[in-house]
Amino acid sequence: MPQWKQSLTKSLHQTRSTPESRYFQLATVDKDGFPFCRTVVYRGLTDNNQLVVVSDTRTEKYQQLMQNQHAEACWYFAKTREQYRFRCTGSIVTVLDDQPLVSAHWNKLSDAGKKQFLWGNPGSERTSDSALQVVGDFQNVPSHFCVLLLQINKVDYLNLRGNPQCREWFYQNSEGTWVSQSVIP
Amino acid sequence: MPQWKQSLTKSLHQTRSTPESRYFQLATVDKDGFPFCRTVVYRGLTDNNQLVVVSDTRTEKYQQLMQNQHAEACWYFAKTREQYRFRCTGSIVTVLDDQPLVSAHWNKLSDAGKKQFLWGNPGSERTSDSALQVVGDFQNVPSHFCVLLLQINKVDYLNLRGNPQCREWFYQNSEGTWVSQSVIP
Repeated sequence: MPQWKQSLTKSLHQTRSTPESRYFQLATVDKDGFPFCRTVVYRGLTDNNQLVVVSDTRTEKYQQLMQNQHAEACWYFAKTREQYRFRCTGSIVTVLDDQPLVSAHWNKLSDAGKKQFLWGNPGSERTSDSALQVVGDFQNVPSHFCVLLLQINKVDYLNLRGNPQCREWFYQNSEGTWVSQSVIP
Repeated sequence: MPQWKQSLTKSLHQTRSTPESRYFQLATVDKDGFPFCRTVVYRGLTDNNQLVVVSDTRTEKYQQLMQNQHAEACWYFAKTREQYRFRCTGSIVTVLDDQPLVSAHWNKLSDAGKKQFLWGNPGSERTSDSALQVVGDFQNVPSHFCVLLLQINKVDYLNLRGNPQCREWFYQNSEGTWVSQSVIP
């Protein structure tokens, strides 16, 4: 297991009782070169080093990743004062691409989580202040529900605790082995 | 005062005892169209709606903003379950541009904060595991110390608490007045 992955596993364990262990920020770029950044819920890390997020094909995030697959995830753990920046290549999986994978992620969501996909087009005008109406049911995976797989290519790790502070870069060498380099914070 | 600013002031008050009230994530784009995202310390919000951050002209963040001034700040408050996304235009102020402003920000830093600017070139190879050596002194503002002013052009506000959840966009109309639009989360 690469060293950064051992370190992340430890950070997640140490912060397991805090909200910050459940989400990170994801930056993408639109077709005009504008950066976007939002908080996303962490749904796991695969054996082959992909961060997993669920999303909606009607969001800007989806549109942006379809046009530019480069992304950076930033995960700051306040409790341990550690930051991980993950340079990623994003890919999108819909129910047409991989029905078992997408269904499995849909079924793992709580009813409250599923509801967020059944309120209508994200970012479209909301005409009433009343509670949002759910359209659809919780059994069937909506066609706009999708899974984002963010393949980690490089990790920029920063630990602000202690003296010296520590910043480490992790990347794969030409043989595909993860190597690290200590840098000035 | 625009409504989003009143709301942010309230969020900052409600979370004042938490670490999350002190930093947010800032996304920028490099010359090749790759997104970058990192945690930055909040240093205030000016009367004319600029988020203030201090930085270093030797960082990627500086290089990126010099080439592409578009940025997005994402501030998530776990305690109140609110997210603010600020679409910004960034500008950089060095001691050559505005000595009083830059000196004032330098002088507000703690010694530990100043140290971080005196360890050498950020991101350059670190050759020893021993404590980083401070080069320079705390009295003089280093020439690479700078202030980032992030002019807020649009706000995407999300409140995950309660039913209905609420998402609101704030932007300036053609007369420069802040208006809002409720949208589907």
